[in-house]
Amino acid sequence: MIEKGVESLWEEVREVSLGNSVDRLLSPPTSLQFLRDFVSQNKPCIISNAISHWPALSLWLNPSYLSTVLSSSLVSLHLTPHGNADALVPHPLHPSTLCFVSAHVQPTPFPQALDLICQPPDHLVSYLQQQNDCFRTEYGELESDCDDHIPWASDALGCHPEAVNLWIGNHLSETSFHKDHYENLYAVVSGEKHFLLLPPTDVHRMYIREYPAARYSYSEESEEFCLELEEPQRYVPWCSVNPYPPAGTEKQERSKFPLYFNGPKPFEVTVKAGEILYLPSMWFHYVRQSPGEGGCTIAVNYWYDMQFDIKYAYFNFLQSLPYRSTDSPKMPESECEVSGSHASPNHESAAKDVEANKECEEV
Amino acid sequence: MIEKGVESLWEEVREVSLGNSVDRLLSPPTSLQFLRDFVSQNKPCIISNAISHWPALSLWLNPSYLSTVLSSSLVSLHLTPHGNADALVPHPLHPSTLCFVSAHVQPTPFPQALDLICQPPDHLVSYLQQQNDCFRTEYGELESDCDDHIPWASDALGCHPEAVNLWIGNHLSETSFHKDHYENLYAVVSGEKHFLLLPPTDVHRMYIREYPAARYSYSEESEEFCLELEEPQRYVPWCSVNPYPPAGTEKQERSKFPLYFNGPKPFEVTVKAGEILYLPSMWFHYVRQSPGEGGCTIAVNYWYDMQFDIKYAYFNFLQSLPYRSTDSPKMPESECEVSGSHASPNHESAAKDVEANKECEEV
Repeated sequence: MIEKGVESLWEEVREVSLGNSVDRLLSPPTSLQFLRDFVSQNKPCIISNAISHWPALSLWLNPSYLSTVLSSSLVSLHLTPHGNADALVPHPLHPSTLCFVSAHVQPTPFPQALDLICQPPDHLVSYLQQQNDCFRTEYGELESDCDDHIPWASDALGCHPEAVNLWIGNHLSETSFHKDHYENLYAVVSGEKHFLLLPPTDVHRMYIREYPAARYSYSEESEEFCLELEEPQRYVPWCSVNPYPPAGTEKQERSKFPLYFNGPKPFEVTVKAGEILYLPSMWFHYVRQSPGEGGCTIAVNYWYDMQFDIKYAYFNFLQSLPYRSTDSPKMPESECEVSGSHASPNHESAAKDVEANKECEEV
Repeated sequence: MIEKGVESLWEEVREVSLGNSVDRLLSPPTSLQFLRDFVSQNKPCIISNAISHWPALSLWLNPSYLSTVLSSSLVSLHLTPHGNADALVPHPLHPSTLCFVSAHVQPTPFPQALDLICQPPDHLVSYLQQQNDCFRTEYGELESDCDDHIPWASDALGCHPEAVNLWIGNHLSETSFHKDHYENLYAVVSGEKHFLLLPPTDVHRMYIREYPAARYSYSEESEEFCLELEEPQRYVPWCSVNPYPPAGTEKQERSKFPLYFNGPKPFEVTVKAGEILYLPSMWFHYVRQSPGEGGCTIAVNYWYDMQFDIKYAYFNFLQSLPYRSTDSPKMPESECEVSGSHASPNHESAAKDVEANKECEEV
């Protein structure tokens, strides 16, 4: 009964509101239009020609410009072995289960960080992506190259951004499915960002489960990453679905997450240099990137406070409902165990493992 | 499980968004503010000093002004025995069950209609309340006394009203709980309107059931109403709850509709002459009125098209879920039967009754 209703909800929100693709505006909307047609309806859009006046659009194509302006800046560089931070990886002690891993964060002189991104070495992936208002702090020297807010969005939302973040990465870095409690204006300055988007109504298709939190620790000397569980132990609810499963695991992943793979297609969106994506609050998104001329992808995003209104209450209600998949194909017992452990991680047995919670990963 | 989640939803939408009472604005909002703080959030508000410039506010206090301007107008007067049209009354053939009754609509010269409202006779209640854009058609002569739309609302909603309706009634007329698929700007010109409001999240508390449609037919000669089932038979989904049950039936009504009577209080709002209520789309409302100086209550309401967006999809999903009340007090068997028949009217047996579908009501 619930299951049928939930599936109808996935369909109906697409039928009545979202359609088959994300709307494209050829110029910035008025604040009223943006609020009425997109924010109020919790509906994404792409806006072209909204940042054509930013000096950043031309200046940042040249890596040496950036390295000169930020020559004396120490920035937070995120290091991972394969480009997936804030993502699920095999648990260090129970590799048949997963944990939620954060990157190793290394304070690094900006010019060196940029080199690592643009000419990546074999053994590590670097990503500048500190999401703590870093554009106005660590990268303050670049402030005059962009607007400090998006005027029509600030007007519509009735406030200025709570945080402005800079993202500099390469094709190796991906951001796994998650949602944010912000209205997000995501401006691409160089290269392209590729988003997969799902509305909040599709929450059951994300298989959000609690995962033990872990962290990469990188040793410059040995050039090796070590995967350490956090102490004290902490659990992070995270989306289980990898929309691009590694070769050879597709069948297994499809059978673990049938609601994602067999349900309505996610919205696929490529945001090019000079464009802004309005990514509505609570939407699930997965992000990949293609580098531009300078060898990297650069974006600035503006997080505005969201309204905790009836849409938010409806979402929490929907998420609280159990979805018991009846049509998922039968799996061999060993795989069922893995899947079960996502659904209900065994906190007690995990706690016992805290004493010996390190497992090093050779790269 | 569903029941607990639904009850949390009732609470959460109040906690995060609605609060304990309806917001009051002392002057008209800007269109952005109206859209951002109310329409987008599906949240009602009352606006004072929004129609102070309407000539209607002073002119319509004088019944003879209205009767002079509309001296040659034939208007649709709604007649009922007790003031409740579009409401549930005992079924003409099975009085232990209910039917949905519409008023007898009598084309009447306006001056005579107004007299019937302001000096009501004992045997019938008259209400001018044709909801078919009547203000711009039947009452076209009054057009210059009001604005033809609410500027900041039209700006916010991006359109002009789909319908503008005039309401002239007295304290005997009530409108039973229902919802409309419109954004509603409800301006009171004379007297007071008293609303009970419940958000769409509370749909299960309304006990919406299908009722056979019937119609009052009034004979001027006999001064009697006849209650006739519609032919061909038609079923109307309608809210079962009467928030003001007649003396002596309170206990029974409370035990039939515990989710309404024991859940969060409805929002109680009195809208005075000169004020506008923004009644968001899909909100359940029950309306009573107190007459002003001229002996009647007069209001003009503007129906704007609503957006069929994620909120609408969420509502339909919520409504589709069964709520199985477990905590409703045990009732004697006879009462249970009545309640059961609301939940699932027996269409077949009702169809058999169509042949003899009239039952007259002495007043």
